[in-house]
Amino acid sequence: MAATPTPAYSVRIRVRMDNEPGMLGRVAIAIGEVGGNISALQGFEVKTAELDEDLVVNCSSEAHQEQVRRAIEDLDGIEILEFEDRTFAMHEGGKIEVLSLAPVRDMEDLSMAYTPGVARVCKEIEKNPATAHEYTIKRNTVAIVSDGTAVLGLGDIGAEAAMPVMEGKALLFKHFAGVDAFPVCIRTSSVDEIVETVLRLEPTFGGINLEDIAAPGAFEVEERLDAEMDIPVFHDDQHGTAIVTLAALENALRIVDKSMQDIRVVVAGVGAAGVAVSKILMNAGVANVVGCDRQGAVHMGRDGLNSSKQWFAEHTNPEGLKGSLSEVMPGADVFVGLSGPDLITVDDVRSMAPDPVVFAMANPDPEIRPEMIQDVAAVIATGRSDFPNQINNVLAFPGVFRGALDAGARRVTENMKVAAAHAIAATVSEAELGPNHIIPSVFNQSVAPAVAEACAAAARADGVCR
Amino acid sequence: MAATPTPAYSVRIRVRMDNEPGMLGRVAIAIGEVGGNISALQGFEVKTAELDEDLVVNCSSEAHQEQVRRAIEDLDGIEILEFEDRTFAMHEGGKIEVLSLAPVRDMEDLSMAYTPGVARVCKEIEKNPATAHEYTIKRNTVAIVSDGTAVLGLGDIGAEAAMPVMEGKALLFKHFAGVDAFPVCIRTSSVDEIVETVLRLEPTFGGINLEDIAAPGAFEVEERLDAEMDIPVFHDDQHGTAIVTLAALENALRIVDKSMQDIRVVVAGVGAAGVAVSKILMNAGVANVVGCDRQGAVHMGRDGLNSSKQWFAEHTNPEGLKGSLSEVMPGADVFVGLSGPDLITVDDVRSMAPDPVVFAMANPDPEIRPEMIQDVAAVIATGRSDFPNQINNVLAFPGVFRGALDAGARRVTENMKVAAAHAIAATVSEAELGPNHIIPSVFNQSVAPAVAEACAAAARADGVCR
Repeated sequence: MAATPTPAYSVRIRVRMDNEPGMLGRVAIAIGEVGGNISALQGFEVKTAELDEDLVVNCSSEAHQEQVRRAIEDLDGIEILEFEDRTFAMHEGGKIEVLSLAPVRDMEDLSMAYTPGVARVCKEIEKNPATAHEYTIKRNTVAIVSDGTAVLGLGDIGAEAAMPVMEGKALLFKHFAGVDAFPVCIRTSSVDEIVETVLRLEPTFGGINLEDIAAPGAFEVEERLDAEMDIPVFHDDQHGTAIVTLAALENALRIVDKSMQDIRVVVAGVGAAGVAVSKILMNAGVANVVGCDRQGAVHMGRDGLNSSKQWFAEHTNPEGLKGSLSEVMPGADVFVGLSGPDLITVDDVRSMAPDPVVFAMANPDPEIRPEMIQDVAAVIATGRSDFPNQINNVLAFPGVFRGALDAGARRVTENMKVAAAHAIAATVSEAELGPNHIIPSVFNQSVAPAVAEACAAAARADGVCR
Repeated sequence: MAATPTPAYSVRIRVRMDNEPGMLGRVAIAIGEVGGNISALQGFEVKTAELDEDLVVNCSSEAHQEQVRRAIEDLDGIEILEFEDRTFAMHEGGKIEVLSLAPVRDMEDLSMAYTPGVARVCKEIEKNPATAHEYTIKRNTVAIVSDGTAVLGLGDIGAEAAMPVMEGKALLFKHFAGVDAFPVCIRTSSVDEIVETVLRLEPTFGGINLEDIAAPGAFEVEERLDAEMDIPVFHDDQHGTAIVTLAALENALRIVDKSMQDIRVVVAGVGAAGVAVSKILMNAGVANVVGCDRQGAVHMGRDGLNSSKQWFAEHTNPEGLKGSLSEVMPGADVFVGLSGPDLITVDDVRSMAPDPVVFAMANPDPEIRPEMIQDVAAVIATGRSDFPNQINNVLAFPGVFRGALDAGARRVTENMKVAAAHAIAATVSEAELGPNHIIPSVFNQSVAPAVAEACAAAARADGVCR
């Protein structure tokens, strides 16, 4: 995919220019000539013969940032005072802080929030442990747990390097659903050790959001924690993606006028997300799911399947399709890509059933570039923010935990996940619905409350609340 | 100790009174007659024939709260609308929240704080792990770790019940030193398991504050973590108390004009705090420390000493004193109590050397009531806020971690602890110094910055900084 200038590579450049007509124009032209996008001009200061100003310039890479710098340096009458990579600048010191909800102004405050008063609250919790959900941060606090083995598309970068992602996730929890989330990056990638560590942390948290843990270990971690903990456990890479995919598919099927029961869905990528997406689609009524990994279709009798793929083979692919991805695409109604870039061709999409639905969700580079199939597919969605129909987990996880915490749910049930998907789909009105609008914007603030309400109701209906 | 009404047992009582002269006076008298202290009148509202008002009343126990309630109910012309225990009310939902430091308003924000921009920061940390201290919350975040086995004076109440104390500690970290601290209460009391759990959490935190872990396990936990971690580890029950005790003793000796080298100090209680206090006093020049537990003086050759007390026997008590606490008190210059209530008598204090210094720090009830020895001891300190000279860890730990984090210290060295004590002592000026003012108030906002600066300087001098 061509490198487009993006805020992810933006720089703030403080320059001092000669105060003469046309100077700013020359700077703008020079930046434009090397492909930089000026997104803002700020901090303007006049000093008689000179002007100081901040230029915010979106670039496409660090090398491109340097090109922009040189383009400015090559001009006469201008000097660079500061040159700051804005992404790194905003990460300085981390992205979250711990704030006090109780004042500590005087001895009276201290006597209630700390000793001696706090001892009374401790004794109450000792006597009646359920009150921990009332008198401690358990009521609103979720751990974002990762071992850093499968971070974004970066792979196994380790627990330290995973922290910025988990902190970012904490921002989203707070912004969209008022959930206090705290990153817990742990230095072990043994399933047993992750499980035992998280179990030991149960007294502190009201929920566990597992994140960016490599498959198949992630499945076992989630399964064991879900079985052993008394608080909701949710593997976002699986279930967040699954919920939002189901929501998008519900609305896509409204457009192409097909039903869950009748469609065949090809899922490329049978990792954490692929398995979870397949499961939720089946829970929602899809009878025919075919999963493909690098060896092609997963089917009964294929050699060398791990336990998760063995389960997959037994529960999907009712026609027993074999062969490569290209060989199972013909006639499929829906393609769901959770794998890597440029995996399918325009001909693959042409071979699908009429009105093909293509969810090419690999990030950052989708399984096929949307512009290549604009006239072929009926509905296209990706994981990217710069195309229509972004399938983004942030539509799901804040509301799911908000609902689970509000309801006092001990678990996140399958019904809660399906209810969350329905709620997301329902935020797109009949009037708004269209091939380029099957899913709400990630900034739609009404999504998380709707998801929360639906999840809480499903939790109560399932009888999993405290 | 007689039960004094305290904010720890305060209630907010919303009453509706007949709007007639003298009504409030009758209520106040009724509350006073059963020993309640009205500390505030709030939320006054007139409704023609009636008045609504909040009475804040300090009580001395939950039974006393009920007495107050009944005293009001017994009056004519008044009705209780709400009756709220203020300590529990302020604990509703926990005492800390996780706040975003980065905005999430639009796609530009999201592109920098989260995907795709965050991946750049992750890769930088993967390449250069030390930058985790720059670009993540590690730079300012401390874990407050407890297993809940020795919480305040409550004993082994478990990890859930310990949470309110750790949350309270987090308030103090933030208020006094701007440190983001997060409670980590873990469900295991095995030394090996605590150690391995905390080691696995190292990627997330910039420091470890151990809290309320029972001795002698706490010693081993701290020792092993200190040896294996690359971030500062501090057992507050030991070193926080030790630092503030040393600060208090420095100033007490200025008053009685004695020197560290010449005094004999009797330490009652050889648990976590007692051992740490003894060590810091010896580091500061005290040559003659005698420790006592329930069996009396700890000395070489005493049977049945655990490893920590064996070390203690080998390094203290140079005269080899034996016998009960009362038997080693005669001639002592300083008594440091870290044990339990009413342990020593007025005669014990009378038997000490001239100008005895008595630190009776057991909480909530000191080893001897200060008013009993007011005319006997030259200087008295306790752990309580309602007597002069409160020896409170909060004077130490916020500044110690502030200094360690600012300096990028990998450890908390002995010199850093002694420097912290000097800094605390130095905040009491020559003019302020007196028998009732050897230590600053816990609300003195200048203490933590002074401690931080001293600690950071000592860390740099010791060469333990990144």
